[in-house]
Amino acid sequence: MTADGDETTIWRNARLATFAGGAPGLGVVERGAVVARGSRIVFAGPERELPSPPSAARVVDCEGRWITPGLIDCHTHLVYAGDRAAEFEARLAGASYEEIARAGGGIAATVRATRAASEDDLVRQALPRLDALIGEGVTSVEIKSGYGLDRDSERKMLRAARRLADERRVDVRTTFLGAHALPPGFAADREAYLAEVADATLPALAAEGLVDAVDGFCETIAFSPDEIRRVFVRAGELGLPVKLHAEQLSNCGGARLAAEFAALSADHLEHVNEDDVAAMARAGVVATLLPGAYYMLRETKAPPVDLFRRHGVPMAVSTDCNPGTSPMTSLLLALNMAATLFRLTVEECLAGVTLNAARALGIETDAGSLESGKWADLAIWSIERPAELVYRLGFNPLHARIWRGR
Amino acid sequence: MTADGDETTIWRNARLATFAGGAPGLGVVERGAVVARGSRIVFAGPERELPSPPSAARVVDCEGRWITPGLIDCHTHLVYAGDRAAEFEARLAGASYEEIARAGGGIAATVRATRAASEDDLVRQALPRLDALIGEGVTSVEIKSGYGLDRDSERKMLRAARRLADERRVDVRTTFLGAHALPPGFAADREAYLAEVADATLPALAAEGLVDAVDGFCETIAFSPDEIRRVFVRAGELGLPVKLHAEQLSNCGGARLAAEFAALSADHLEHVNEDDVAAMARAGVVATLLPGAYYMLRETKAPPVDLFRRHGVPMAVSTDCNPGTSPMTSLLLALNMAATLFRLTVEECLAGVTLNAARALGIETDAGSLESGKWADLAIWSIERPAELVYRLGFNPLHARIWRGR
Ligand SMILES: [Zn+2]
Ligand SMILES: [Zn+2]
Repeated sequence: MTADGDETTIWRNARLATFAGGAPGLGVVERGAVVARGSRIVFAGPERELPSPPSAARVVDCEGRWITPGLIDCHTHLVYAGDRAAEFEARLAGASYEEIARAGGGIAATVRATRAASEDDLVRQALPRLDALIGEGVTSVEIKSGYGLDRDSERKMLRAARRLADERRVDVRTTFLGAHALPPGFAADREAYLAEVADATLPALAAEGLVDAVDGFCETIAFSPDEIRRVFVRAGELGLPVKLHAEQLSNCGGARLAAEFAALSADHLEHVNEDDVAAMARAGVVATLLPGAYYMLRETKAPPVDLFRRHGVPMAVSTDCNPGTSPMTSLLLALNMAATLFRLTVEECLAGVTLNAARALGIETDAGSLESGKWADLAIWSIERPAELVYRLGFNPLHARIWRGR
Repeated sequence: MTADGDETTIWRNARLATFAGGAPGLGVVERGAVVARGSRIVFAGPERELPSPPSAARVVDCEGRWITPGLIDCHTHLVYAGDRAAEFEARLAGASYEEIARAGGGIAATVRATRAASEDDLVRQALPRLDALIGEGVTSVEIKSGYGLDRDSERKMLRAARRLADERRVDVRTTFLGAHALPPGFAADREAYLAEVADATLPALAAEGLVDAVDGFCETIAFSPDEIRRVFVRAGELGLPVKLHAEQLSNCGGARLAAEFAALSADHLEHVNEDDVAAMARAGVVATLLPGAYYMLRETKAPPVDLFRRHGVPMAVSTDCNPGTSPMTSLLLALNMAATLFRLTVEECLAGVTLNAARALGIETDAGSLESGKWADLAIWSIERPAELVYRLGFNPLHARIWRGR
């Protein structure tokens, strides 16, 4: 019996979008092949350069289909309980945000439902959402906490996120988002909540191995840069990378803070200015664009894509899957929105859910391109050109998805 | 052996959105059941009123799931060859509409590809799109010609549309759209093309049983109301109902023409005015809203939903699936866009893809609501409330789809 981990598979007669070598563009190989040994890519390039394979290799004829790296959804709030469909319905029927908040709606409703749910409930409710992403070729997904807002509930969310990786063949990266909103009971003492997050909850959950990165919501309606700073300092002491919800509804200094802490990414960024963008470029911060929330909130100020281009800030694209502002479980739809609403090019869109999304998660040495040494995470598509992945609305041309070589 | 056509099936323990009786609202029945005998509904209502079934009846426990009428996509250009992904890509890279048109792009590209394709090609290329709609619970779909623009090519498109109904368990309504665009070679003689459409192609294809309704594109860049009138007059002589692409990019009299001919529907309608809406109301014309095209074209003037409400014009919602302005194959996504972009309520959205879509196709005596005597076309959903069908983005909660009782 051959050890599964050493099996060699060759996908041949394929067209590749490799995103290799960090060069701009898709890194197209017209008559290409990918070879995996175990869970890693050992070759990706022109078929004529294919090394002679072991005789036991499994060979898959892709019949001219396109292979991209497995897609990466680098910003989601996939784990939560309940939904906000009733609130969505009420808003369409004329209820104001204030009326909904007074009725206990908004994020408070999701916090209540998530606190009341068991870990099993959270896993069960998240699985159909995860399956929708996986069904479109997603092989890595980031999942944030932030609807628990106390130690036990945040732990429960992150444990549920970890368990999703046992339930499905997918890579889950967890992010601690204790600084998402001020929970009930702390309105009179914001400092007490931030102390709890930074000094108690984060170190405890990090010690339990539940935290891959640390995030915050920097906004006038959430936390100030100085408040977030306290959490980021602690993350640094714990050796954890940071990222930030920044400049979504106003410019209030989040992108600068992200740059100061060399964050993996700053996310949303509709209101970022050129100085902030320059700082992000110097610090190597990825700009993660979330067109689903922009669309659902009917925003009119798009993030400054031209500034990101001019300063060389890599752009990622993500669903922001969450029950309030982006109940979206299609990364392909996020691509269409990034193109249609933000005018990203096809190449920028596709880099945004592969190589740049890997950068936004700090996993670019393992994922995000078809290159020897990286995980053999592939999406194989029944399309004639990569632009089809961006152009279509509500169509899934995935032919096969390979995770870790299988 | 029991004749299949007389089989009785009971779906019980369900929540129903019946849209029955023409009353506003969803027509909810909280503990409901639907009974089909053969292809027709013989009961839909509270489970406690369920008539005693024949002993051979098949009973399906819906476990509290919701049942709606099968969804109806009442405006599509589903049959065509090629796609326009390359053009979409070029536009994002900075090409203007003029540059694309000079390079042979736009509708001319789809006409060329459709003329060059065989009927088999057209069926084969349309099937994945149809399957995407069916996968979300669509049981009736309208399909237009209009990319052939000569008799043989229009015939080929309509025959392909009819064949789709043999290939899948779905109701296909065909619409002749010869007056979609002026084909190459007729720029100097518009009248000659309209004579060909109205006096030759339409009567011939109608005689072959290929035409269920007649449509036109009334717009400054297409045909004037007077030009369309000639086609509508012929449709009337042939006993065929009409519908119209009207007031999408400007107000040029299409909605009034549609009202004058008591059209089934006027479609798009971003630029319709109140007099037109009043005329539509008097003539019983359905307003078919197509938010996918509005979104893809980044329009900013939404159709006047308040006027439709005030004047009592029924609103339908459709994908407008077409390769240029709405490459959309998700009717659920069209619902979210109708709510998010046009502010339709949840009830309006759902009526727009059931009862009002049936009206827009003239099939409301057979489809569009859960009522005794109508086709047993059902969609069964794993949801807690109907609003979820509108609220989510890129998620398909269909549990089962029943077409004609099975
Ligand atoms: Zn977020
Ligand atoms: Zn149309």
